[in-house]
Amino acid sequence: MGKVICAGLGPGDPELMSVKSDRVIRGATHLAFFRKKGRAGQARSIVKDMLRDDVTEYPMEYPVTTELRFDSDEYRQLMVDFYAEWADRLANLAQTQDVVVLCEGDPFFYGSFMHLHTRLQGRAEVEVIPAIPGMVGCWNAINDPFTWGDDVMSVLMGTLPEEDLISHMKRADALVVMKTGRNLPRVRRALEATGRLKDAWLVEKGTMPGQRVAKLADVDDADCPYFAIVLVHGQGRRPEAAE
Amino acid sequence: MGKVICAGLGPGDPELMSVKSDRVIRGATHLAFFRKKGRAGQARSIVKDMLRDDVTEYPMEYPVTTELRFDSDEYRQLMVDFYAEWADRLANLAQTQDVVVLCEGDPFFYGSFMHLHTRLQGRAEVEVIPAIPGMVGCWNAINDPFTWGDDVMSVLMGTLPEEDLISHMKRADALVVMKTGRNLPRVRRALEATGRLKDAWLVEKGTMPGQRVAKLADVDDADCPYFAIVLVHGQGRRPEAAE
Repeated sequence: MGKVICAGLGPGDPELMSVKSDRVIRGATHLAFFRKKGRAGQARSIVKDMLRDDVTEYPMEYPVTTELRFDSDEYRQLMVDFYAEWADRLANLAQTQDVVVLCEGDPFFYGSFMHLHTRLQGRAEVEVIPAIPGMVGCWNAINDPFTWGDDVMSVLMGTLPEEDLISHMKRADALVVMKTGRNLPRVRRALEATGRLKDAWLVEKGTMPGQRVAKLADVDDADCPYFAIVLVHGQGRRPEAAE
Repeated sequence: MGKVICAGLGPGDPELMSVKSDRVIRGATHLAFFRKKGRAGQARSIVKDMLRDDVTEYPMEYPVTTELRFDSDEYRQLMVDFYAEWADRLANLAQTQDVVVLCEGDPFFYGSFMHLHTRLQGRAEVEVIPAIPGMVGCWNAINDPFTWGDDVMSVLMGTLPEEDLISHMKRADALVVMKTGRNLPRVRRALEATGRLKDAWLVEKGTMPGQRVAKLADVDDADCPYFAIVLVHGQGRRPEAAE
């Protein structure tokens, strides 16, 4: 009797995964990971120098990525079938041995594994190993403390309506905006409307080869991949000498 | 010529620190850490089985914790002097060797090291190793996905005024409230006012021995240490079979 072990990979630098994920991945004989069809897969790339020679790999290839709108019935049905099929396969494998599933960032924080986690309940033993979320790797790349004292931090998605972005940006001290890409013009307008644009950073591939850290004001709207993250630092209370 | 290396420790389980922090701590010959006077110190406890026999330790003992109000001039001056003194000592040490500074959670996320980081700029080479924030360990302890799809997540401090807590709790999907302790009655009222109390969890010592996970509604106000974290899960978009 084995189990499904989801190993959180962290932000991308293999040295930043946990001691536990590192050990589990190096020992894995059955290894599953999500990827886009025709690609090596980001998760698989991170562990490329860590695998046993005799590992059996299970690339879980998304049936669709950006070809359909995520709110269409067709997209929903394709994804439901995809997750159901892989939950079946992993549950079956786990009857006889451990199977390790890779997940970038922290698995429970907007992670793709969660769709399998839900479907595996009661069918296999599941263990999840937490990891450093991608946004933490990105603020580390800027090399400046991100939140202080009583700062409120809000994590927003670039897919949100502009008025929602503005409402949160007005009230929070530190800001993280994920899912940028083609949403960047709207994110930029909301930051401008709330006076936060001048303090905003764009970080791409934080902690990875090709890492890029730029002031958002210096970045073209067209020059922003979907996985780049926008960050605005908090300015909260800290003990300083009297002025 | 050495440097000051701040090693993020993560949520508390030594297996959840990064491969890099693990290596740096095991190799440290000079090790500094914050603690309350008269205590072993939480950071020091996490690494207790990892240290070299010949390590030289530098406990940085807070001159004051809860005896003075944090907004009093006396508190501020004591803390300013304390950080200035330790920045001097660490900068001097780093002239001739590496010195490792421990920091619970992620150093740049409400971490105590940030006060030294600021003061060390231009005086010593400083390297910060990111880590899993405490809140990530806490939501992992509940063992249920925390944020989905387009969920907005807000991190709040229990020290905030009740109307601010309510304003954020109304607008965000997933909620994290830190600095609870004696602020718990106010946090609870704000959750109740926004209809979130029934979904709130309290997690204490997430990933550590003595870990406690409880529905907040079942916890007495008096039974909440300062470092316990309140969590409310997001309920965002996920592909499910048609209803």
